[in-house]
Amino acid sequence: MPPDPLVKGLLSGDRIALAKLITDVESGSPRASEALRTVYARTGRSTVVGFAGPLGVGKSSLISRLVRYLRTEGLKVGVVAVDPSSPFSGGAVLGDRVRLDLPRGDKGVFVRSMATRGQAGGLAQGTRDTVRLMEAFGMDVVIVETVGSGQSDVNIRDVATTRVVVLVPHLGDDIQSLKAGLFEIADIFAVNKSDLPGSAEAVRHLREMTTIMSPRSDWRPDVTECSALNATGIEELWKKIQRHEDFVRKESSAHQESRDRLKKELRELLQRKLEERLRSMLLEDGEVEEWARQVEEGKIDPYTGSDRIVQRLSGQGRSKTVSRRSPRLDKGARPRG
Amino acid sequence: MPPDPLVKGLLSGDRIALAKLITDVESGSPRASEALRTVYARTGRSTVVGFAGPLGVGKSSLISRLVRYLRTEGLKVGVVAVDPSSPFSGGAVLGDRVRLDLPRGDKGVFVRSMATRGQAGGLAQGTRDTVRLMEAFGMDVVIVETVGSGQSDVNIRDVATTRVVVLVPHLGDDIQSLKAGLFEIADIFAVNKSDLPGSAEAVRHLREMTTIMSPRSDWRPDVTECSALNATGIEELWKKIQRHEDFVRKESSAHQESRDRLKKELRELLQRKLEERLRSMLLEDGEVEEWARQVEEGKIDPYTGSDRIVQRLSGQGRSKTVSRRSPRLDKGARPRG
Repeated sequence: MPPDPLVKGLLSGDRIALAKLITDVESGSPRASEALRTVYARTGRSTVVGFAGPLGVGKSSLISRLVRYLRTEGLKVGVVAVDPSSPFSGGAVLGDRVRLDLPRGDKGVFVRSMATRGQAGGLAQGTRDTVRLMEAFGMDVVIVETVGSGQSDVNIRDVATTRVVVLVPHLGDDIQSLKAGLFEIADIFAVNKSDLPGSAEAVRHLREMTTIMSPRSDWRPDVTECSALNATGIEELWKKIQRHEDFVRKESSAHQESRDRLKKELRELLQRKLEERLRSMLLEDGEVEEWARQVEEGKIDPYTGSDRIVQRLSGQGRSKTVSRRSPRLDKGARPRG
Repeated sequence: MPPDPLVKGLLSGDRIALAKLITDVESGSPRASEALRTVYARTGRSTVVGFAGPLGVGKSSLISRLVRYLRTEGLKVGVVAVDPSSPFSGGAVLGDRVRLDLPRGDKGVFVRSMATRGQAGGLAQGTRDTVRLMEAFGMDVVIVETVGSGQSDVNIRDVATTRVVVLVPHLGDDIQSLKAGLFEIADIFAVNKSDLPGSAEAVRHLREMTTIMSPRSDWRPDVTECSALNATGIEELWKKIQRHEDFVRKESSAHQESRDRLKKELRELLQRKLEERLRSMLLEDGEVEEWARQVEEGKIDPYTGSDRIVQRLSGQGRSKTVSRRSPRLDKGARPRG
């Protein structure tokens, strides 16, 4: 197959190609999966950082500051916003930076918000694929912003190797949020709005908690103070991220986590592909249609009907004719329920 | 295959056999599906009535009254309680009637509450199967009690041919509940606690609503008053149920609904069986295991890996050897994310 010009564009740094391929990912186009196969070997080397945290802690502002800092370091940065309440979001295809303090016209930054509905392959898969496209595009760092908890949300564990949980001093929901699963995912706690009173206490409190409760024996979450408003603590935050990335490169437990992540992705892809196959067989395969019809008419029971269709899907029973067993005895009876 | 003694027991009215088979259904035992296949031709002829409605409207008391009335009419009645807050519930295997005014020691009544968790085949399927076992047992009427709305709930549309929505006069949540989907499912509205003031107005109001909003052109929901406390309106309620059952027997739209119900069941069964098959292949099929391992290790991409496994599941690619393409070039790199 001749290489897709969009893939060539992506690999040569064409932003329009990147934007189009992300749109293909979202719509579930076969072009997207072909592109992802092609570029897969070029992924897995960027630093992928997830930012999670409750509403109002200033995740987006902090990410903007970090992006600016990374640009001064000469690093290319992609941002994927999954949080629908994020100022990054809003469906802008080439990155909506209006409300964010991001360098304008800078070709080393690409921001994309993911539609949280109507993702053909599911939001988690869409996010994974978009991160990979940004990696293949040449981003040194890819930042994923999510709410980080809640059912409809993308589990940041599934996409990022380093997870930053953003909190603020005296946030009433702090402990609540930590209980809601944010504590378990944090590699780094960033206490934002360090200009507010109580910041030092919050840091101390979190450090104590990480000592007592740390769920992993080999990595105790770092706690760091920063202020997106005053642009302080940003370099320190990046150093902590790098320290965790070094750890991930070396530790076998982190390798296991990466395996688990791919295992989960494989399972989700398999489930989706089987569902697609089932859907198309129910529509297009004459024998399957016939069994489905007989079940609907009460001529065969749904247990037997589903068994036969699964056999058919598995390539067995191809030449069997459809038996017309157990015709209903009670012709005049009420339809079955 | 020699007939299962439990099935023989079920068909000859052995209550222990019925109880054991329901337990088999809940645990997903193969014995249960075999039994259901065997008795399927004997199902679909009972009157299956669903009772739904908000908390506190007295669904369970009303059902108790209806059961007593039906017994005086010589009808055998099964009750399946899916509502976890129902007094019928509580996991009693042979029917917990302690808090309910049901005839004790009466062999013509069987009450079973469904565990809302840990149902091997899903709660909806467990309810369908339990209803069928009760039909095969010889119940003339099977009553299913659910909350009737909400996500984790069994959709009463999937199991019952006649749906009774129970409300009370001046219930603050009335309109709310109706908006929450109860209006669309109701074949009959039963305004319980008709002894309370405002009952006649509530009935009038509901009648108006059914005139204006009725979602179906061929059936306008009946509205009836009753009081579980004073045992009034129970016979009238049963007459309305029978009127709807007569309608269902005759109308083609009701036949279509029955087909849709079976179609949905078939889809759910298929999905579950495919998931099971996938799970067992990932554990037991050497080639599938090998592909999964290569994906986890980053040796092949998850898109290609999932394609090959789906092909394998479909009986293709059986003799292909596992290719070891695209070995990672960056041996020392961080594990993949």
